[in-house]
Amino acid sequence: MSVVVRNPPRADAKAVDALAGYGVATVHEAQGRNGLLAPQLRPVYPGAHIAGTAVTVSVPPGDNWTIHVAVEQCRDGDVLVVAPTSPSEAGYFGELLATALHARGVRGLVIDAGCRDVAELQKMGFPVWSRHVCAYGTVKETVGDVNVPVVCAGQRVAPGDVVVADDDGVVVVPRARAADVAEASRLREEKEAASRARYRRGELSLDVSAMRERLAAKGLAYVEYEEYAAGEAG
Amino acid sequence: MSVVVRNPPRADAKAVDALAGYGVATVHEAQGRNGLLAPQLRPVYPGAHIAGTAVTVSVPPGDNWTIHVAVEQCRDGDVLVVAPTSPSEAGYFGELLATALHARGVRGLVIDAGCRDVAELQKMGFPVWSRHVCAYGTVKETVGDVNVPVVCAGQRVAPGDVVVADDDGVVVVPRARAADVAEASRLREEKEAASRARYRRGELSLDVSAMRERLAAKGLAYVEYEEYAAGEAG
Amino acid sequence: MSVVVRNPPRADAKAVDALAGYGVATVHEAQGRNGLLAPQLRPVYPGAHIAGTAVTVSVPPGDNWTIHVAVEQCRDGDVLVVAPTSPSEAGYFGELLATALHARGVRGLVIDAGCRDVAELQKMGFPVWSRHVCAYGTVKETVGDVNVPVVCAGQRVAPGDVVVADDDGVVVVPRARAADVAEASRLREEKEAASRARYRRGELSLDVSAMRERLAAKGLAYVEYEEYAAGEAG
Amino acid sequence: MSVVVRNPPRADAKAVDALAGYGVATVHEAQGRNGLLAPQLRPVYPGAHIAGTAVTVSVPPGDNWTIHVAVEQCRDGDVLVVAPTSPSEAGYFGELLATALHARGVRGLVIDAGCRDVAELQKMGFPVWSRHVCAYGTVKETVGDVNVPVVCAGQRVAPGDVVVADDDGVVVVPRARAADVAEASRLREEKEAASRARYRRGELSLDVSAMRERLAAKGLAYVEYEEYAAGEAG
Amino acid sequence: MSVVVRNPPRADAKAVDALAGYGVATVHEAQGRNGLLAPQLRPVYPGAHIAGTAVTVSVPPGDNWTIHVAVEQCRDGDVLVVAPTSPSEAGYFGELLATALHARGVRGLVIDAGCRDVAELQKMGFPVWSRHVCAYGTVKETVGDVNVPVVCAGQRVAPGDVVVADDDGVVVVPRARAADVAEASRLREEKEAASRARYRRGELSLDVSAMRERLAAKGLAYVEYEEYAAGEAG
Amino acid sequence: MSVVVRNPPRADAKAVDALAGYGVATVHEAQGRNGLLAPQLRPVYPGAHIAGTAVTVSVPPGDNWTIHVAVEQCRDGDVLVVAPTSPSEAGYFGELLATALHARGVRGLVIDAGCRDVAELQKMGFPVWSRHVCAYGTVKETVGDVNVPVVCAGQRVAPGDVVVADDDGVVVVPRARAADVAEASRLREEKEAASRARYRRGELSLDVSAMRERLAAKGLAYVEYEEYAAGEAG
Repeated sequence: MSVVVRNPPRADAKAVDALAGYGVATVHEAQGRNGLLAPQLRPVYPGAHIAGTAVTVSVPPGDNWTIHVAVEQCRDGDVLVVAPTSPSEAGYFGELLATALHARGVRGLVIDAGCRDVAELQKMGFPVWSRHVCAYGTVKETVGDVNVPVVCAGQRVAPGDVVVADDDGVVVVPRARAADVAEASRLREEKEAASRARYRRGELSLDVSAMRERLAAKGLAYVEYEEYAAGEAG
Repeated sequence: MSVVVRNPPRADAKAVDALAGYGVATVHEAQGRNGLLAPQLRPVYPGAHIAGTAVTVSVPPGDNWTIHVAVEQCRDGDVLVVAPTSPSEAGYFGELLATALHARGVRGLVIDAGCRDVAELQKMGFPVWSRHVCAYGTVKETVGDVNVPVVCAGQRVAPGDVVVADDDGVVVVPRARAADVAEASRLREEKEAASRARYRRGELSLDVSAMRERLAAKGLAYVEYEEYAAGEAG
Repeated sequence: MSVVVRNPPRADAKAVDALAGYGVATVHEAQGRNGLLAPQLRPVYPGAHIAGTAVTVSVPPGDNWTIHVAVEQCRDGDVLVVAPTSPSEAGYFGELLATALHARGVRGLVIDAGCRDVAELQKMGFPVWSRHVCAYGTVKETVGDVNVPVVCAGQRVAPGDVVVADDDGVVVVPRARAADVAEASRLREEKEAASRARYRRGELSLDVSAMRERLAAKGLAYVEYEEYAAGEAG
Repeated sequence: MSVVVRNPPRADAKAVDALAGYGVATVHEAQGRNGLLAPQLRPVYPGAHIAGTAVTVSVPPGDNWTIHVAVEQCRDGDVLVVAPTSPSEAGYFGELLATALHARGVRGLVIDAGCRDVAELQKMGFPVWSRHVCAYGTVKETVGDVNVPVVCAGQRVAPGDVVVADDDGVVVVPRARAADVAEASRLREEKEAASRARYRRGELSLDVSAMRERLAAKGLAYVEYEEYAAGEAG
Repeated sequence: MSVVVRNPPRADAKAVDALAGYGVATVHEAQGRNGLLAPQLRPVYPGAHIAGTAVTVSVPPGDNWTIHVAVEQCRDGDVLVVAPTSPSEAGYFGELLATALHARGVRGLVIDAGCRDVAELQKMGFPVWSRHVCAYGTVKETVGDVNVPVVCAGQRVAPGDVVVADDDGVVVVPRARAADVAEASRLREEKEAASRARYRRGELSLDVSAMRERLAAKGLAYVEYEEYAAGEAG
Repeated sequence: MSVVVRNPPRADAKAVDALAGYGVATVHEAQGRNGLLAPQLRPVYPGAHIAGTAVTVSVPPGDNWTIHVAVEQCRDGDVLVVAPTSPSEAGYFGELLATALHARGVRGLVIDAGCRDVAELQKMGFPVWSRHVCAYGTVKETVGDVNVPVVCAGQRVAPGDVVVADDDGVVVVPRARAADVAEASRLREEKEAASRARYRRGELSLDVSAMRERLAAKGLAYVEYEEYAAGEAG
């Protein structure tokens, strides 16, 4: 039996919008290096950067019927997250479904399978992160589930969690942690801004982060090339 | 012994030009989900969209001599289709060969191997779909065949067949079916245009395509989140 | 024990700048088809083309501490070359390290592992060739070596060697051969320019390079399609 | 902060032993085609077949310290399930750890990373399912978690769940469903035994499962070769 | 529409049995290095070696219904050859279908997808060459074709062609060429037996095959280590 | 120009034989986690374990002529190490070459490409570690080099270095370090034997290696399941 769960709570909209201001790498670090989806998920065109609340879809291999079901459950600010129950290269998603989602204010799609119509998706500005680009079509024979927790590209995503995606990949933030992670991202960003300014002036992280002593304790030695080359030859 | 077959019949030029108006996904669907080359073939730069008649080349691994032979067999409106007899990452093709093909009105290259000089190819506007980008050179020691049927990226391509390629990949249409598939593509496109307009207004495919009853028959159930969460916890 | 070798000799700056004028495919051919790094190393954004002298870094899997150490050893005109001692998808490198390198005149990074912050890298114009794009962070626990010879993506790179990289990939030229390979590249380019002009006018490499006789000797036969098709059917 | 959860409840021992009597394919079907780990996990030697209760370990890339921590949490009848937080080919596990686990009655290891000492593991009869065989060692610098839910090769595994593994791969059965799935496996096995006997006598599934009518309704047509060949040629 | 072609002519039984006496490498060489299926197809257990006549099956991704249809078309001495129309890791085939094929005298299965129940297949001695071992099940919703030409793992296989398979992989011999290729295999084997005897006595292929002169003409030079090492250091 | 370097010095035979007594994982650890070839190199049959001195061969893609040249340079106790200059799946090596090497006392082959005749190789007891098993043949058109340093599967191998290979993979030990690494392997093995005995009696590495304090310092906390579960639910 298949189930569609209606109206799961979404992460707080303010926290989502705050998270949209940070890159995937920052958010991933800010929540303790958790939540990164497998890097095989790539944007189908460069330059997009979104954050939104997950509507999750579990689909059979090569069957996109459940995505049609899921459209109705989507609201403004959501991101669709699709995980097949077994690996598939098929093109589950194209510009028609994108048109329908776009009309509802959905911000993008994350799918651990194939996507097609990438030229059209870029034209309409509907970003997709997928494992494959593949025109091979899908059937509509078997129904999966909507808004149950799924494992997508190696990470658990629950409905209402926050999904952040950019050119570096995709990270998921649990709904309950959205505000905390947004704040931790802000702090990290601030700290990095300070370092960045110093690096720009030519300072070294060895000094900025006081690494020299710890490196020496680990046994790091410096040697001039002539001396080193002489040793290798001897 | 190797053979070059001269002057194979090409698909009807009008049908080819008609097919050029449709994306790979559409053409692939319109001919019953057949003819899609493996999605590992990717455009070396984004944004190209071509259709043309195949001149086929069977090449040994790491040897591009036969491509030089094939140039002479190409005409205005052709697409070169190259398949190695065993897998190779080597860069069989670069801007010099592209210059020669361009001068003959060839529209692009599809190769189940490597390609190089991609910056120059983009500058001159000669699109290539390849499995690899690789600068490793090839030799000129062994001769293959030109204009015999080949298997390229998992699909049989005969000389004169139509090849359509865009950002989604590459599809082959048998010569004899070109006009029929062009017409089927037109019909599919028309139907999709109607759906697209309705989706844009916020209608759902569940209604547009009358799926709700069939989904219910498959056992799809809807449940509110609170009820579902209570069930999981119990 | 780990070692940082200081002030290794660099390839001659004039030779490096000369090599910067040629593509990776040309340089690779000009040095006898040697030195090409595995084609799985790809630019994180298209269109960059650099040449510089290698500062080499051997890093443990998932640990980027040694890259911080290496920054100090870099000079204007260098390219950082990073090789993990065992495969890793982790994102060893992002825009903060790029900022530090950029401030020292470093021209780019070649890494047989993962890279992150690709949107920021493109914005600041710091090119990277990597095996993966991956936001997953690294630790700072174990130290590797700087400016010892490394194997990067299947090629030996010594400190001071020349690295040339463009959209086709990455090639390494040994320090001692830089001037010779630059000259050989120039000669090759000249020869190709002559061929290119002839191809543009519609001449064939079969004639330009006098291949017809040798092909006939290899047993290449030409046959008209009607004749060939009749033979296949019979 | 890292955590070791002590004494999680295990699935009922009788249900585990019952599940040990069925293959992975049967168990996977019996629980509705759920729970199969990615097929890239392969046995390091053929012929093993186990079922046991999961002790879960989340490990950093290239660091096996937490496996040493986990040994103490294992009991007779357990199976260790190890998932790195980012992909790693490193050999986290060898015969010394196997000796320690074997002494505690642990039945095997499932790891979404590398394993080494495979000849010794086969000699001592300690089965391992892993993604890689790789001698590359790991460090002991960073601690992960023991007995928290993990995602291993694409499936969620909670401590105390049942893991069944054989030459076909690995499947996980949630603790609460162990008895039900064992019973469903028994029923499936019974039904298959009946079919098997009929197939052995030469009966066809077309008849045994009454497929002919449904196939005809789908439009399946039968044609003699001569007739078909004539049509293709015409 | 789907079609089952009945009673296609098979290659001559005597030629098939003769081909069964030669390994895949020999047969592949004997027919001019043609017909080898992609090496990603591997035997699910070692040591099998078969030859038989192809019954071909084109299947949708993740749907094995057509294999059930194909069983009825198989005869003593056949080999089933299954090609999905788009890539799939699913386990299309297990011991129940093997039992049915075994009862009809079928010699094995070649499938460019997944297979399961490998322990049982080994026990009953029914060999399978597949791209994946995977327990994930398939559905019975969509029908494909039986005994039409297919592309399997990059090679065209027509019904009635000869398939030879061993631990090295799988090769296909067109029906009309079976006797010729068997004879060419015999000649090759004879020639190799003569060489083998000479190699066993310590003779070198450089002399047995008179390569020294041709190598010298290619510029091969011999140098003593001391001389070579001196040159490198100089 | 190609070169064959004659009579490079080999590592000390006693050190080689001593190294033969240790597994690849032990030797790799004993030399500071260096020298491991990429784990994609796998034994073509299980159970072999060898050590020998390297005769190195650099070959063009798909061309095995240089292996024939190399046979003459091999002596009793050598291991042939073959690296293509660009990746190739082709079957460079089969039982005829194995017969020739076997007659000269060569202990095995390590090749970063394809191998064929694996059933025959197992029968004659000539072990091979390769990246692919593939029957596709090679040509004899282009000559490479023998006994020059090569990069094989990511590691530099010089002629005369020691190669150790078993079911875990392949490791290279520089000639000059052979005796030292053999001794370090012996010490490591001794230490492991002591630990093994304690683990067999049920002792834990946490105690044997005194890890508990250091783990506590890293913040590892222990919690009972009931307490943990209550915290998660709260």
